[in-house]
Amino acid sequence: MASLKPITVHGHDSSANPWKVVMILEELGLPYNHIFVNIATIKDEPYTKLNPNGRVPTIEDPNTGITLWESGAIIEYLVETYDKEHKISSTSFPAKFHEKQFLHFQMSGQGPYYGQYAWFTRFHPEKVESAISRYEEQMFRVVGVLDKILEDKQYLVGDKISYADISFIAWESTARMVFADKIDRFKGFKNYDAWYERIAARPSVKKVFQLRADAMAKSSH
Amino acid sequence: MASLKPITVHGHDSSANPWKVVMILEELGLPYNHIFVNIATIKDEPYTKLNPNGRVPTIEDPNTGITLWESGAIIEYLVETYDKEHKISSTSFPAKFHEKQFLHFQMSGQGPYYGQYAWFTRFHPEKVESAISRYEEQMFRVVGVLDKILEDKQYLVGDKISYADISFIAWESTARMVFADKIDRFKGFKNYDAWYERIAARPSVKKVFQLRADAMAKSSH
Repeated sequence: MASLKPITVHGHDSSANPWKVVMILEELGLPYNHIFVNIATIKDEPYTKLNPNGRVPTIEDPNTGITLWESGAIIEYLVETYDKEHKISSTSFPAKFHEKQFLHFQMSGQGPYYGQYAWFTRFHPEKVESAISRYEEQMFRVVGVLDKILEDKQYLVGDKISYADISFIAWESTARMVFADKIDRFKGFKNYDAWYERIAARPSVKKVFQLRADAMAKSSH
Repeated sequence: MASLKPITVHGHDSSANPWKVVMILEELGLPYNHIFVNIATIKDEPYTKLNPNGRVPTIEDPNTGITLWESGAIIEYLVETYDKEHKISSTSFPAKFHEKQFLHFQMSGQGPYYGQYAWFTRFHPEKVESAISRYEEQMFRVVGVLDKILEDKQYLVGDKISYADISFIAWESTARMVFADKIDRFKGFKNYDAWYERIAARPSVKKVFQLRADAMAKSSH
């Protein structure tokens, strides 16, 4: 797709959701620029003119003229627009909708619970053990649900890699870095852990891990 | 669509997400049966054979054979499969993807924050003021984002009602019942409140409000 202009991703060096989108861009071999938004002014113009929710990611695609936010919607857009060979998406029924099911589970289940656990362990103004316990429990409940679904399976939908699998990896890899004290508990879910390692070994995902590590190392200098 | 068999919705009398799906079914004039799942056994078989996440809603559509969970994915499925006249969805670009953007915002923004506010005000084992404040702030942040988007607009995407608008109403109406002490704050967002009342006045939505009220009255007997 050499004739395409680069898609701009307004993201961040340490936020999971922009890297989730970048993984999809890498899988599809699309050109892009990943710009790191200044979090201090993310709720202000000019950024809120692009994304009134004041969060990352937002994309601008000069090939179609769209500006779009919400990582789940961005993934649906990228796949529908550019995955013409169906490398990471299905057109068959019901697989097509089961991929959406898992994407929405990632968006409404994994992301929020992992995010709230991060909030209460790292950012909340006071230490609230009962809230930390709640979100740790919910985080591993989500992991347990996926572990059970992945019994005797390589991928979430059918026997084919899809954007649904990839959509879980950015948050999971962030969790394994940030909540390093919980690594044994994550790894204890055997089907889940094998699946995670399977997706994490993909060249596109490994490349994004490296890009993120480089960006985070640079920003901490 | 008289020749269609009823779609089964596994839901609940007082949960927002199943009623969100029922609103879409009513808008599309589709036949359905809304079954109330026993919450006490929702994490057990046989329900987890339908939905391993142990949450509502799940649908079973005998017309296509699909079983599907996650309300956002169910809405995408219903619209793609049955909204052939595009009553509540667009095929034009970029509206089609902006509808998905707002659906994902409902799924990952509105639902989780409203839900956590409900948790900490009603169900958490201890009263944690800092957590209650956090989620109240986030709930009204989401409302404020929508209020700003809705300035001089009737609907979220273009000048057309869509499933994106409707998707926010079940949680919002639940919030206005359950957090009745906050009603003035909700109503203070003028664009948002006018939009809410606009959608809430639709015959399909009014019908679902009545169905919910009847179901909740019956279950409390």
